[in-house]
Amino acid sequence: MKLATYRASVESAARLGVIVDDMIVDVEALAACFAEQLPDNMLDMIDAGPAAVAALKSLVEDCAGQWPVNTAWPVQNVTLLAPIPRPRKNIFGIGLNYVEHVAESAKSLDTSKDLPEKPVVFSKPPTSVVGPGDPILHDKNMTQQLDWEVELAVIIGRKASRIEKDAAMDCVFGYSVMLDVSARDNRRAGQWIFSKGQDSYAPFGPVIVTADEIEDPHNLNLWLTVNGTEKQNSNTRHMLFNVPTLIADISSGITLEPGDIIATGTPEGVGAGREPQEFMWPGDVIECGVENIGVLRNPVVDSSRN
Amino acid sequence: MKLATYRASVESAARLGVIVDDMIVDVEALAACFAEQLPDNMLDMIDAGPAAVAALKSLVEDCAGQWPVNTAWPVQNVTLLAPIPRPRKNIFGIGLNYVEHVAESAKSLDTSKDLPEKPVVFSKPPTSVVGPGDPILHDKNMTQQLDWEVELAVIIGRKASRIEKDAAMDCVFGYSVMLDVSARDNRRAGQWIFSKGQDSYAPFGPVIVTADEIEDPHNLNLWLTVNGTEKQNSNTRHMLFNVPTLIADISSGITLEPGDIIATGTPEGVGAGREPQEFMWPGDVIECGVENIGVLRNPVVDSSRN
Repeated sequence: MKLATYRASVESAARLGVIVDDMIVDVEALAACFAEQLPDNMLDMIDAGPAAVAALKSLVEDCAGQWPVNTAWPVQNVTLLAPIPRPRKNIFGIGLNYVEHVAESAKSLDTSKDLPEKPVVFSKPPTSVVGPGDPILHDKNMTQQLDWEVELAVIIGRKASRIEKDAAMDCVFGYSVMLDVSARDNRRAGQWIFSKGQDSYAPFGPVIVTADEIEDPHNLNLWLTVNGTEKQNSNTRHMLFNVPTLIADISSGITLEPGDIIATGTPEGVGAGREPQEFMWPGDVIECGVENIGVLRNPVVDSSRN
Repeated sequence: MKLATYRASVESAARLGVIVDDMIVDVEALAACFAEQLPDNMLDMIDAGPAAVAALKSLVEDCAGQWPVNTAWPVQNVTLLAPIPRPRKNIFGIGLNYVEHVAESAKSLDTSKDLPEKPVVFSKPPTSVVGPGDPILHDKNMTQQLDWEVELAVIIGRKASRIEKDAAMDCVFGYSVMLDVSARDNRRAGQWIFSKGQDSYAPFGPVIVTADEIEDPHNLNLWLTVNGTEKQNSNTRHMLFNVPTLIADISSGITLEPGDIIATGTPEGVGAGREPQEFMWPGDVIECGVENIGVLRNPVVDSSRN
């Protein structure tokens, strides 16, 4: 299923929906029509676990596109938000996780040309998350090197401490897309949270596709365009550390929890690695997507105070 | 006031208390005795803002040590937890924020000997937080370089975006102590979240002292002992970037929110900087404190699977 967080109008609260064809169906309202109870928001749905997902799937299949009154609307009539508008902790980001990107980073940034021996983990605060269509804030007094990185995002579905690789995929709730916006000139003694964690630096969505519908997360095309011109185009098969390896590695020391998000790294084609270098500027429109999940489209806007 | 999160017994829920002399007074229960409403947990208290803090202070002063029945207990009869047992996002950590520590780090780790030009920010997940007395987990299969760093923790009291230095102190709710446990051999291509963010790597507490009771946060002794032997002993006046500078700097790009925690960096005397190097091992007991706030005492325990 394609799960989304949506607002029916500007004033209404964020709610959990499931997208079927070109309709979005309200999860709580649909369940109520059948005297069932399902959560009204994404984090509660993730917490509710596989039984809740199965119950929703069954309801959706039973309806066969005939939605009860006041449960469904055309997707184009609602606003999609980030699927988890407010994560409960910082997003786990993975740096240097595609071989070609390691090479371009070493050439243009201060990273090593050697492949990392272990996943390179950093974080982006909950305040960096924005949704489909939301502006990416560009403050010219802060950065002249605002860069793009399209990534497959993994959403954790259950608590995971010291998980072995062969059990790790059971911990995945689903997948989404994240644009890991990075102000290259805002790194601090090599630390990335300030360069990657500023407000609006984590466009996220448009949906979470549940794990059962992604046959192989390591065979998905992912791409990014700036004003319609392709800048990144690769496949998740080129990840250095794949999804179970990342979950096993992080959970060896840090307990993962339901609703946690891992942005799994970006392939080659970032702006800093190009000759000449290119960056994002106010007026640009960034589109990025991952196969079978969806597309994010975010404009870059000037947020400087003068 | 000294605010604490406590459990009256193993089974009971975590609640908000205020420590007066050797008693802990339950905040919600005390307020109820006077037909007032005050929060039962620390994050709600912080969210409630200065008026709630003032109301509590007034109640405490009016009681003058005569606590109504079933509102107060000897502190020694309850368990103090981390003041914020579950932060809403990762803790902001500041690296290399004391001059002498920059020098010892450059000698023993891979950091620069030059003073940083801007604060070096990293993060520790909510899952790393433990309370007074809780074990620091030592997994010998993960690290042989588990190190100590005592730090002044600043608790943010209001939303802060692009705050100027001269308004920054108004955003401080209070102060606490944090032990920034660091597995030096778990850094990843220079990123610190995995080395500093593992489960139990953020002992925190024992209390939050409200900002009005700390006359000058830049003139507080802070110290740490391992098995009673002094390893760190300095004063917050030696911070390279002081509290308002840190708040102004982080909030220039990342919106700070009520309940956010900034661990402001450690002075010299860490294990990696000693000759020969020293680290923490199972059986060790770490005590650390900051003047006018309190003392944390945490044992190191073996958590390895074999």
